[in-house]
Amino acid sequence: MSMSPTESRSPVSDPVEAVDLVDLADLQPFSVWGTDVRARKLEGELVTLAVVELAPGAVVPEHRHRNEQLGMCLRGSVTFTLDGQTRVLGPGGTWRIRSERPHRVVAGPDGAEVIDVFSPTRDDWDFPFEERTTPRWPG
Amino acid sequence: MSMSPTESRSPVSDPVEAVDLVDLADLQPFSVWGTDVRARKLEGELVTLAVVELAPGAVVPEHRHRNEQLGMCLRGSVTFTLDGQTRVLGPGGTWRIRSERPHRVVAGPDGAEVIDVFSPTRDDWDFPFEERTTPRWPG
Repeated sequence: MSMSPTESRSPVSDPVEAVDLVDLADLQPFSVWGTDVRARKLEGELVTLAVVELAPGAVVPEHRHRNEQLGMCLRGSVTFTLDGQTRVLGPGGTWRIRSERPHRVVAGPDGAEVIDVFSPTRDDWDFPFEERTTPRWPG
Repeated sequence: MSMSPTESRSPVSDPVEAVDLVDLADLQPFSVWGTDVRARKLEGELVTLAVVELAPGAVVPEHRHRNEQLGMCLRGSVTFTLDGQTRVLGPGGTWRIRSERPHRVVAGPDGAEVIDVFSPTRDDWDFPFEERTTPRWPG
């Protein structure tokens, strides 16, 4: 497929060539835990920064990974369970998940948009990119 | 100074003892580039996640650091200069700054709140914590 010069300057699905000042709306979404949990990501060398959209009531089952994970709720609410603590977190609610700690998330009745940051990068995230759509946040 | 049991459970200025599900409003701010650029932070082992408040017109002069930095605008706007590109970024605008790349930021007329993520952690951030205040975002 040939690309116009404009298209070739925004290969957002290729982190190696991607430009470094990009709007979230120009990043392609992908499904992480079924289509109820979709994300867009920035990939660095040490860090993956994801903006994740959770549908109302979406469940991220208990899981763990070697990557450290820090995050914050942007809109809506999530019920977070981590190390025996369970808290409902709204906008500005944060989490800090150390390597290999099990955690579980359930989105509230209005769903949620959150940021999640991982280090090392999520090299295991090989989900196929989907059609570009308007992110729910910032709308 | 003695602490009540309640106080001793929220030592947010001590990352070693801090709980892992915390509201942004419970994190103490500190000034990064004078009082016009204040931040609150979560500290991991590999990542520092900061929510930064920039006053209207605040200037972060060109600088560089070994830490990789990814970030996103939450509210307001910033004019970002990085590697010869300059862009005005509103909510959902993102940046990816590789190690040692010079960058400069000027906040828009309404100021801005942004997230900034660094790896390795910002061990050079030894700014004194200030009185807890209500974060401008989410308000």
